[in-house]
Amino acid sequence: MESVKSVILAGGIGTRLWPLSRTHNPKQFLKINGTSLFQDTWQRALRISGPDEIFVVTNHAHQYLVRNQLEEIGIHVPDERILKEPVGRNTLPAITWALQHVEEEFGTSDVVVFPSDHYLDVGAMDEISAARSISTQYLVTFGVVPTHPYTGYGYIDPGEPLPLGARVRRFREKPDYNTAKIYMDAGFLWNSGIFLFSTGVFFDELAKHQPDLYSRFREGIREYGSLPPLSIDYGLLEKSEKVAVVPLKAKWTDLGTFRAWYDHRPHDGSGNAGHAEMIDSARNFVYAPGKHTALIGVQDLVLVDTGDALLACHMDSTEKVSELVKRFQERGDTIADYHLQVHRPWGFYTDLERSRFFRIKRVTVKPGKKLSLQMHHHRSEHWIVVSGMADVILGDRTIHLRQGESTFVPAGTKHRLANTGKIPLEVIEVQIGEYLEEDDITRFSDDYHRT
Amino acid sequence: MESVKSVILAGGIGTRLWPLSRTHNPKQFLKINGTSLFQDTWQRALRISGPDEIFVVTNHAHQYLVRNQLEEIGIHVPDERILKEPVGRNTLPAITWALQHVEEEFGTSDVVVFPSDHYLDVGAMDEISAARSISTQYLVTFGVVPTHPYTGYGYIDPGEPLPLGARVRRFREKPDYNTAKIYMDAGFLWNSGIFLFSTGVFFDELAKHQPDLYSRFREGIREYGSLPPLSIDYGLLEKSEKVAVVPLKAKWTDLGTFRAWYDHRPHDGSGNAGHAEMIDSARNFVYAPGKHTALIGVQDLVLVDTGDALLACHMDSTEKVSELVKRFQERGDTIADYHLQVHRPWGFYTDLERSRFFRIKRVTVKPGKKLSLQMHHHRSEHWIVVSGMADVILGDRTIHLRQGESTFVPAGTKHRLANTGKIPLEVIEVQIGEYLEEDDITRFSDDYHRT
Repeated sequence: MESVKSVILAGGIGTRLWPLSRTHNPKQFLKINGTSLFQDTWQRALRISGPDEIFVVTNHAHQYLVRNQLEEIGIHVPDERILKEPVGRNTLPAITWALQHVEEEFGTSDVVVFPSDHYLDVGAMDEISAARSISTQYLVTFGVVPTHPYTGYGYIDPGEPLPLGARVRRFREKPDYNTAKIYMDAGFLWNSGIFLFSTGVFFDELAKHQPDLYSRFREGIREYGSLPPLSIDYGLLEKSEKVAVVPLKAKWTDLGTFRAWYDHRPHDGSGNAGHAEMIDSARNFVYAPGKHTALIGVQDLVLVDTGDALLACHMDSTEKVSELVKRFQERGDTIADYHLQVHRPWGFYTDLERSRFFRIKRVTVKPGKKLSLQMHHHRSEHWIVVSGMADVILGDRTIHLRQGESTFVPAGTKHRLANTGKIPLEVIEVQIGEYLEEDDITRFSDDYHRT
Repeated sequence: MESVKSVILAGGIGTRLWPLSRTHNPKQFLKINGTSLFQDTWQRALRISGPDEIFVVTNHAHQYLVRNQLEEIGIHVPDERILKEPVGRNTLPAITWALQHVEEEFGTSDVVVFPSDHYLDVGAMDEISAARSISTQYLVTFGVVPTHPYTGYGYIDPGEPLPLGARVRRFREKPDYNTAKIYMDAGFLWNSGIFLFSTGVFFDELAKHQPDLYSRFREGIREYGSLPPLSIDYGLLEKSEKVAVVPLKAKWTDLGTFRAWYDHRPHDGSGNAGHAEMIDSARNFVYAPGKHTALIGVQDLVLVDTGDALLACHMDSTEKVSELVKRFQERGDTIADYHLQVHRPWGFYTDLERSRFFRIKRVTVKPGKKLSLQMHHHRSEHWIVVSGMADVILGDRTIHLRQGESTFVPAGTKHRLANTGKIPLEVIEVQIGEYLEEDDITRFSDDYHRT
């Protein structure tokens, strides 16, 4: 049997994890435990697919984040394996697009579709592979055996048994607590969002139930943004007669809320997760890296600090964090969108301090990468190399700066910063000027086509 | 009648306000509302004493903080008005020392002693002045008329009435809640720690009840640190027969805990004080300047952020913050001692960022001030002027740097930074080296005798 292909969906945001998640730093890329859920998902996919058989669908704006995170775990993928949505259109267009790419490259194939924003025990990979025995007859969904009547997930109602799993009788939306108990007693399963599709069955069913969408893909997508936003559940699986569910016994959680993160992490004797000085405090989740944090007489609190933002939320209210993000977005507050750390194709920068007349950044350039050849009208820049070696173009000169050396880039001077060394280059950049925003930049040449 | 002299006690720490208060940034100097309690106390004293009739007793380490805060409100005092304790010895030695200075300079005088770590409505100044009618017969204490049975203050039990106020029958320690109710019903008063002493009565009573201490001061104090630590209450007022209490009707609070700060500040409709995005949250106190802060489903919480530290404390547990500070001190954790902002005689610096190989500070030099002529063995420094103008001695050169200009100070080079201009000088300093602590400094010359 041909090896199975993998598609990783990495297009969501995860607004219930603000201030960790932001529009430009979504949940699946957060590294709360050292590696991100996206990196973990890739590692899992590698257990069933070769490194050249994995596709990612992500937002156009997150392509460098994807690439940086893959390079961090030693993986270099051809650019065409990263499908970049100009705008999110929910899961059905994303999956269809990816499956079309798989089919074009490998012919009719079995494909596992993985969301990248949840935790899944690797033991599940064997259960998933085993489901290939029914993939030529069914669109296979995977249902997690519930451990408690959770109201935050959708449920799948299994019907007529199959040699493996069962036909799906119905998909159920997130229930209230009493309904969740009834579902659990009735043997319903949590909808994991993981699927196994044969491209043959998938496109047959799509042609039948979403003929317009099918034709638009078959004719070659020109304007992705004009596609209707449709979820795979509503747009296809609830309409098709050929849907099976296979139970997963492995541990799974969507880690969609801080409550879920808290449940997932190790606790001390008083039920606290995370690092803080505690007096008379129990059942709290604390995440405030690099900071002295103390709790006194506090119970059931989520406390998250990111340098620019601070959240204190009762453990039972973590679903409401998205309301907060909605408020920020409605009034155009960019705290919903940007972190202090901003990802670029050549690495990233971190905002350290700013006032009206100056701004300080720590700029990290990956080995072998360079920024664009550029110029600023309104600001001068002082660069001080604190780690690695910098190759600098400054007007018509080229200079080399070692650790501890510095240079000055006057406003109006063409310049370029590059790292031709073998270790990351770290530069402290002090900008001075009357206008210090990112859009004061004229690019003359760029390795990443941003001119 | 001669004008009354004032003594301001500014030697305490206020450990229950960590992480705002630190050993080197005590409660009375915090600017939670724009001005500090110390500055407010000075302004109050100016209503009864001339600018040359006010003395401060503070810890040696806080003299520059005192001076900087006075300059901020436009006050320049001669150095001999600031009495610098090499080590704290509680209130009796501090007050005795100050009263001796007053007597030496002005002869027998009426002196009001103000702690500088509480809030007092200025209306109280008239009530305090009026008490001079009994100051030649009595050591006058001021008792605040209680508004509720608070357990955090000491109480004064008034006895035989006098033309103004009453003789003190007894001082009472902080009571439990039921006792506090009994005290309040019995007409006891809160011990405000404010006193009016005639130096004549004070030294007569001191000679009688603390003859050793009296002699040591009369002979001229040589080793302040060898004095016994004694409070004015225990050491003198509880022993003397000549103690009166005058009631203060003006609003007073010691602001010793975050609970007291919360009660003192304006509240929104849900009883919250401070700035945060709130959902389903009530009766919280939030202080996290420069930060996006959000509370969801949280009640009765104190949340305080200082950049390097974060405290979440139940409103009923704010007395326990001092336990936390004790823990830090016992294990030698300097988070109990230093802020990110550090005061110096020439101004202050703020730590912005540090790693193993570099450290970034924002250095602010007051107009007309200069740092010492100094040298570092292990670090080089890049200086970038972001505001004002700098005069720099660098080896045997002298250079001038304007906004946006920079220079480099190699390790081993003598240097000095000065501000001869009229506005504050702000410099971003990037230090690079293998050892970046404050004690790598050799001073050759210093305006503040630190060589």
